[in-house]
Amino acid sequence: MSVIKIWTYDWVPEGPRGFVRDLRLRWACEEAGLPYTMGSVRFEGRETNHLAQQPFGQVPFLSDGEVEIFESGACLLHLARKSDRLMPADAIGEAQMVQWIIAALNSIEMVTVPWWFLEISGAKDNGLTGWLTSRLDGLETIFKNREWLAADRFTAADLLMADVLRVPKLRAFGDRPATERYVARVTDRPAFRKAVEDQLAYFAKAD
Amino acid sequence: MSVIKIWTYDWVPEGPRGFVRDLRLRWACEEAGLPYTMGSVRFEGRETNHLAQQPFGQVPFLSDGEVEIFESGACLLHLARKSDRLMPADAIGEAQMVQWIIAALNSIEMVTVPWWFLEISGAKDNGLTGWLTSRLDGLETIFKNREWLAADRFTAADLLMADVLRVPKLRAFGDRPATERYVARVTDRPAFRKAVEDQLAYFAKAD
Repeated sequence: MSVIKIWTYDWVPEGPRGFVRDLRLRWACEEAGLPYTMGSVRFEGRETNHLAQQPFGQVPFLSDGEVEIFESGACLLHLARKSDRLMPADAIGEAQMVQWIIAALNSIEMVTVPWWFLEISGAKDNGLTGWLTSRLDGLETIFKNREWLAADRFTAADLLMADVLRVPKLRAFGDRPATERYVARVTDRPAFRKAVEDQLAYFAKAD
Repeated sequence: MSVIKIWTYDWVPEGPRGFVRDLRLRWACEEAGLPYTMGSVRFEGRETNHLAQQPFGQVPFLSDGEVEIFESGACLLHLARKSDRLMPADAIGEAQMVQWIIAALNSIEMVTVPWWFLEISGAKDNGLTGWLTSRLDGLETIFKNREWLAADRFTAADLLMADVLRVPKLRAFGDRPATERYVARVTDRPAFRKAVEDQLAYFAKAD
């Protein structure tokens, strides 16, 4: 069996600790019981120092034997196919998981991340707020009616969606109790808590 | 063999014609030689009239026998697995295709679509312009050095990335000749031209 290696920065400032996206892959491996090791690229000079591994200077990326993958969403899809704890084995469940992974990346994060970016840039009148409200309200309706996104069970889609939604600024934006219960439920999983602790320890070691 | 059905709106205004995302799925089916039929939901009332099929009121969505999928990116991943004309059969080629599909959705569209949204909203000082520039410059460097994104051949990742980049406002934003050549090369494929013609005819029929 090939060895999974997750790459992240060697260090990050306090702010993003617990939120760097290698967490998604650590968490997936913990859920699935897949052994993995960690590797680092330098945070300093990240704009250009690992473009051969990641063309936008981001983390994480992953190696699994001869396979190398960047984009946390793509790495997650790769890991999900290795374990039925992450992805249902039937075609319908698989399709539901994939559609909700893509929805998290391309219908939710496509609005939440630029909205957050404008907020922290100090934009006076954030032009994405209406769009954000409509997307989060859509999710709230969904979470009122179900516990999990795909196949009536925890899948990698919940892992990703909860990671997208747990950002403090988003949780503070409007009162959406069903969404809040969903995020609390998913992030209460032992695999999530282990992944966060491990990430915090990893970056603290380099201080 | 189950029948693929692609769902789109029954009509759209002139502006988005040729750009509605059912095009990605038509194009994929044309490339792969997969037979498909079309189905419609009403454009009027789209915010709420088909939430059971698509929780954000968007199109396209797809049915393939018992499997139902929304999100154009997820539908594309589903179709790609049906044909080696869209996805290489080996694990390394597959991983490269998936990573570039996710990059198109979560590293490029995550910036280009909100940037475009702010532009057409008449934002005076678009706070996403710097980020957009950096992402498009990153792609320009890539296209200077290769013809295709994954596995040295056309894959579904090129289909998606070219569709993301061919938006007129983006093509007019800065001079990026390698990107322009890439978009021209990919959209010169007969399957793309057939998909656009079919979409234009589909919406014109409802005028």
